[in-house]
Amino acid sequence: MSARKTAVVLLSGGLDSTTALWWAKSRGWSPVGLSVRYGQRHARELSAARAVARRAGAPLHEVELKLPWLAVSSLTNARLKLPDVPLARIGRGGIPSTYVPGRNTVFLALAVSLADAIGAGAIVIGANALDYSGYPDCRPPFLKAFAAVARRGTRAGAEGRPPRVLAPLLRLDKKGIVRLARRVGAPLELTWSCYAGGGRPCGRCDSCRLRAKGFREAGTEDPAL
Amino acid sequence: MSARKTAVVLLSGGLDSTTALWWAKSRGWSPVGLSVRYGQRHARELSAARAVARRAGAPLHEVELKLPWLAVSSLTNARLKLPDVPLARIGRGGIPSTYVPGRNTVFLALAVSLADAIGAGAIVIGANALDYSGYPDCRPPFLKAFAAVARRGTRAGAEGRPPRVLAPLLRLDKKGIVRLARRVGAPLELTWSCYAGGGRPCGRCDSCRLRAKGFREAGTEDPAL
Repeated sequence: MSARKTAVVLLSGGLDSTTALWWAKSRGWSPVGLSVRYGQRHARELSAARAVARRAGAPLHEVELKLPWLAVSSLTNARLKLPDVPLARIGRGGIPSTYVPGRNTVFLALAVSLADAIGAGAIVIGANALDYSGYPDCRPPFLKAFAAVARRGTRAGAEGRPPRVLAPLLRLDKKGIVRLARRVGAPLELTWSCYAGGGRPCGRCDSCRLRAKGFREAGTEDPAL
Repeated sequence: MSARKTAVVLLSGGLDSTTALWWAKSRGWSPVGLSVRYGQRHARELSAARAVARRAGAPLHEVELKLPWLAVSSLTNARLKLPDVPLARIGRGGIPSTYVPGRNTVFLALAVSLADAIGAGAIVIGANALDYSGYPDCRPPFLKAFAAVARRGTRAGAEGRPPRVLAPLLRLDKKGIVRLARRVGAPLELTWSCYAGGGRPCGRCDSCRLRAKGFREAGTEDPAL
């Protein structure tokens, strides 16, 4: 297997990143997972990431980041309340408290570093900017800017074969993501999307509501419930 | 002090980043240092960073990264030999073994995250692309691409006041950097530039040779020797 057919896949263990990983497999990429523990409220999504990588037969790099300033986010600071807003208002009221400053920038930077170290041909991220919470670092102009960083800031780029930055879900709605997941055989029963930590998804956070919408509109059951 | 007058300064404790920090002070920025321990061969530069931040009266965030794949670099893997090439060949023989994949991308990403969390108006990096080792992530097109990431991927950018990415040394040679350091009063006696770890600078690595050139051409003694 040539390193150039390797893709570094950012893997949180949720619906989107798991679908992105299986999409990469379906396109002939050999995936290497990258998960980041950055102080999430719970470890549940990281154990989901491990299960997904294992099922894919993909190596998984896990990186731990201790960035005290991320405590401004309700996703990392359990003393802050998670938003509980109706589906129709998600992504429409400005950037919500769950925004983790610079998260995708840091994730993609770590992926660039890994890709340049192993000579991977691509970086895959499950960002999407349609049914989403309104984070700036999920939008097409951001991903386009980051692709330029990957071209300009790497050894591979300097040698004329920069890693591509692929965001296959970018313009899909959640229904489209669920359908893509089914088409490429992603093991959605292993995934975890809820922002809260309990034994079962809370059903009320942005992530739960958007996920439920996706399955409902795709006319199929969520195998993780 | 308004947060907008705060600048996050990437601080390694070397000549360049220390000069960049003092330059920021001279321009009226209130600096917040950010140092990253990523498995350097030695901890000496990090204690230099602490001394510099203390002298500046600047808070210092220290982040530890464990990225096993960085062992491809002779800067992080003590079993690899550091380059020992004549001054005239530094930066001219392709990317050297000291290149740490994606280092400035990761550093700047962490700085973007911190800047967006605290509402800082700028990120300052001491990168320079004239008397340097030839790393791709020190060059103007890379820094320009990263400035677009900081604009597009932050809450502050979405709200119309993105953090600026400032690289005041980018087009200076080492002589110019030493002169700038003198002009802004940077405490060069506290700095450490050598890639190796001993009690004194080795005098043979790229970093020692470039530093010595700077002082020689500026017609002044290195106060750290």
